[in-house]
Amino acid sequence: MSEASPAGEGAPSKKALKKQQKEAEKAAKKAERQAQQAADAEASEGEDYAKDRYGVSRMVQSHEKPDRKLVKVSTLNSDVADQTVWVRARLHTSRGKGKQCFVVLRQQQFTVQGILNVNETISKAMIKFTSGVAKESIVDVEGVVAVVPQKIESCTQQDVELRLQRFYVISQSVPRLPLQIEDASRPKGEEEEGSQAPTVNQDTRLDNRILDLRTQTNQAIFRVEAAVCQLFREALRKRDFVEIHTPKIISAASEGGANVFTVSYFKTNAYLAQSPQLYKQMAIAADFNRVFTVGAVFRAEDSNTHRHLCEFVGLDLEMAFDYHYHEVTDVIGGMFNDIFRGLRDRFPTEIAMVNKQFPAEPFKFLDPPLRLEFPEGVKMLKDAGVEMGDEDDLSTPNEKLLGRLVKAKYDTDFYILDKYPLAVRPFYTMPDPNNPKYSNSYDMFMRGEEILSGAQRIHDPEFLSERAKHHGIDLETIKSYIDSFRFGAPPHGGGGIGMERVVMLYLGLDNIRKTSMFPRDPKRLTP
Amino acid sequence: MSEASPAGEGAPSKKALKKQQKEAEKAAKKAERQAQQAADAEASEGEDYAKDRYGVSRMVQSHEKPDRKLVKVSTLNSDVADQTVWVRARLHTSRGKGKQCFVVLRQQQFTVQGILNVNETISKAMIKFTSGVAKESIVDVEGVVAVVPQKIESCTQQDVELRLQRFYVISQSVPRLPLQIEDASRPKGEEEEGSQAPTVNQDTRLDNRILDLRTQTNQAIFRVEAAVCQLFREALRKRDFVEIHTPKIISAASEGGANVFTVSYFKTNAYLAQSPQLYKQMAIAADFNRVFTVGAVFRAEDSNTHRHLCEFVGLDLEMAFDYHYHEVTDVIGGMFNDIFRGLRDRFPTEIAMVNKQFPAEPFKFLDPPLRLEFPEGVKMLKDAGVEMGDEDDLSTPNEKLLGRLVKAKYDTDFYILDKYPLAVRPFYTMPDPNNPKYSNSYDMFMRGEEILSGAQRIHDPEFLSERAKHHGIDLETIKSYIDSFRFGAPPHGGGGIGMERVVMLYLGLDNIRKTSMFPRDPKRLTP
Repeated sequence: MSEASPAGEGAPSKKALKKQQKEAEKAAKKAERQAQQAADAEASEGEDYAKDRYGVSRMVQSHEKPDRKLVKVSTLNSDVADQTVWVRARLHTSRGKGKQCFVVLRQQQFTVQGILNVNETISKAMIKFTSGVAKESIVDVEGVVAVVPQKIESCTQQDVELRLQRFYVISQSVPRLPLQIEDASRPKGEEEEGSQAPTVNQDTRLDNRILDLRTQTNQAIFRVEAAVCQLFREALRKRDFVEIHTPKIISAASEGGANVFTVSYFKTNAYLAQSPQLYKQMAIAADFNRVFTVGAVFRAEDSNTHRHLCEFVGLDLEMAFDYHYHEVTDVIGGMFNDIFRGLRDRFPTEIAMVNKQFPAEPFKFLDPPLRLEFPEGVKMLKDAGVEMGDEDDLSTPNEKLLGRLVKAKYDTDFYILDKYPLAVRPFYTMPDPNNPKYSNSYDMFMRGEEILSGAQRIHDPEFLSERAKHHGIDLETIKSYIDSFRFGAPPHGGGGIGMERVVMLYLGLDNIRKTSMFPRDPKRLTP
Repeated sequence: MSEASPAGEGAPSKKALKKQQKEAEKAAKKAERQAQQAADAEASEGEDYAKDRYGVSRMVQSHEKPDRKLVKVSTLNSDVADQTVWVRARLHTSRGKGKQCFVVLRQQQFTVQGILNVNETISKAMIKFTSGVAKESIVDVEGVVAVVPQKIESCTQQDVELRLQRFYVISQSVPRLPLQIEDASRPKGEEEEGSQAPTVNQDTRLDNRILDLRTQTNQAIFRVEAAVCQLFREALRKRDFVEIHTPKIISAASEGGANVFTVSYFKTNAYLAQSPQLYKQMAIAADFNRVFTVGAVFRAEDSNTHRHLCEFVGLDLEMAFDYHYHEVTDVIGGMFNDIFRGLRDRFPTEIAMVNKQFPAEPFKFLDPPLRLEFPEGVKMLKDAGVEMGDEDDLSTPNEKLLGRLVKAKYDTDFYILDKYPLAVRPFYTMPDPNNPKYSNSYDMFMRGEEILSGAQRIHDPEFLSERAKHHGIDLETIKSYIDSFRFGAPPHGGGGIGMERVVMLYLGLDNIRKTSMFPRDPKRLTP
């Protein structure tokens, strides 16, 4: 589909086209000039015999398709000792020291040491140039892989270093960075020790997200996040779910108008969907049987907490069941265990990398998952000294306390709290047939924080109308929702999961802004 | 994450809770009454000996967890002949005929015939009841699988029928449907023959989308759509891409403000993203190397055509490359071939099902895909009598014509048109280093319609600024975009794909509203 064009673009004249060509040449010339300057310094002491071995390359504009193969930093180890390789990487650090220059080259999570020594092919001018390249620039280097006698602790590739022979800058960074990658990577413990080591606060990180995301920790966090989505979909496809896509722009603030963002839609107003629930249920009424959807959901809540976002990724599912909504909780519980197992078994490197900066206990879970009933939860809280009514909802502190009590008693960081009081759930929640005070609804928790809310939904339009009236809802405003069930609908249930919360809590992080690549909250709309 | 609560919900009183219990009982009683009425009719002729074998069941409210296993319609064949099975399905049709009743039971794409005959266990009253149940109701039936002497052409399960013994209504449909499933399923040819056979127009379908989606064709279309997403992700993960999520709410109408929806965001205004491009590029600048994202994109274009939507699902990707942007076109081309092959080999049933209603030629593609350069395309058009300038963009009719010419010459429904004139592309497009009139950009086409637009992007901030100025863009408005490249950025390129278009064109459908579950266009915001 066509990429949106920027406004103000007109068709440039032929003259302008020539000008454009000149602009490209200008950039290339600038690069040449810089290489020249380095060479000039040398020139006073005589011709630089290394001058073809370094410099700033012209901009990669797809001039040619050279045969040269670039290898990955992650593949550099003793298996390829003595081979000459080309690597494109970021200049993580560069330190000139007399006739030597040490560099660390970084490629995503991986780092390798490089070294240059003045000799018959490497000139002093080349060392000087290399030492002066700004950190975070992208460079192409040629070097020989050499096994080192002692492990290089500061790099991921600990057994080898690169003896560099050529060094070209592909894309230059400005020399003054708004944050240092080392500072943004400093382990949490060290930050707190009150040492002189500088730290980077959350806002500075987010203001300069492009740099912040380059830390090994962030490279790992967002790979874990991708894994959560992948495992969610794998687990559900395995269970015969079909992926669907639901509209984000909706005509009516169906959930009553609170906490909804308004959109100007041609000559009328529309709203941003707070959840895909209505559409998931329509897909069930339309015979898709089991559906899931991964997509943006929006909450116009003025909540500035560690766990609220105004836009987040919803992992939503809905399914028809045969006789009892525990068929749904079993599926969701099994799915979560598939995710937890998949993360543990397939992404241990990424998890360890995050733990290095943000230490956390390994995530524990039971198979099958623990399902507690609400009254049992209340009893545990009361036994621990909490005063609350039997049908009160759980406050956030009580949720956290219950999480600790459950962990102590059952040794699990994940559990299902089933049978919430009817009074604290939405009108479409199916009441418990055996006890009218309770409902066929559940929340699920990770490390004591809620990550899923769900229920059996009422699929009978008459009963649904009764329940809506009971809640004082004007039936006219939810007519199309109720009408969705007038053409036969199977009993069904489901739930909605906050993706960023799952990643945050699985990894034991303290702020949801760490697991949203470009977070949106009441105070942040950029970058 | 908590499901949004409807407004107006208060905690009901204990009295109210009792009332709620009564409401549930009322629904159950109503069902009983209906069963009773049928029995009563019989009663005048004596006790109904079949009265326990049919009726309207009470609402499934998760009272119990019976052992009874429901089997899938798709599994009913001669392998299970003579077995007694329970099935839950929709009543597709029901036709009483004296002492017999024929029904067709439907489960998603699958149908099976059921038959009831009056005998020592099945009463006349039971036949009457069964014949009177509204179509589209959901029923639980018990029956014996019986091999039939002649294939049942009207059902997907052609070798067997069910000799029904029990028949219970689980969820009733209203008797008057706003559209008939048969009418909505009628093959396109028959529709056009001007016969009396009623048809369902697109708007009626969409107004009653829940019913419309129940057709076998729609069940298949949206399974193909799910497959496209799955194959897209599989193809890219295989090529080391990482999935990311980009914000839909953005602070500035970065593309200039045209065709952008405005959102009220707390005390300020924000906009809905027209594409994730800026964020994909930031992810590349942040070292993710290869990224993709699947998500909603928004275009406030007042275009009422067969191929425009105001909200669609973007399949977007972006990757760093080494030397030449053809590394990118190779990856994208290979990915499309993986999708086409995957659909053909893994989803032949679904494709055939759609073709039954909407006939189309099988989708043809070459491996590797055909890559034409823009001037070659222009030459083909000129040779065919089209008058156009060498650097004019392609009009929609010319795109379609070129698609037919390419099909005739190369026998492919997919091709890449490379090297667009620089003048018709956005400012961030990398100019061709060898010919300033052209650019390192490309569109890709399926059956003559554009489904992807992409390019090598300019990764040098100075050159990007020059190009923006050249296009008359105020640099202040795109400062943060340009600044994204100041800390070193690899050469990169990518593209954006319209998911609904891919599905529409692969299947040879005529309207994008057929491949969007709940489409949004300038005139449609519901359901």
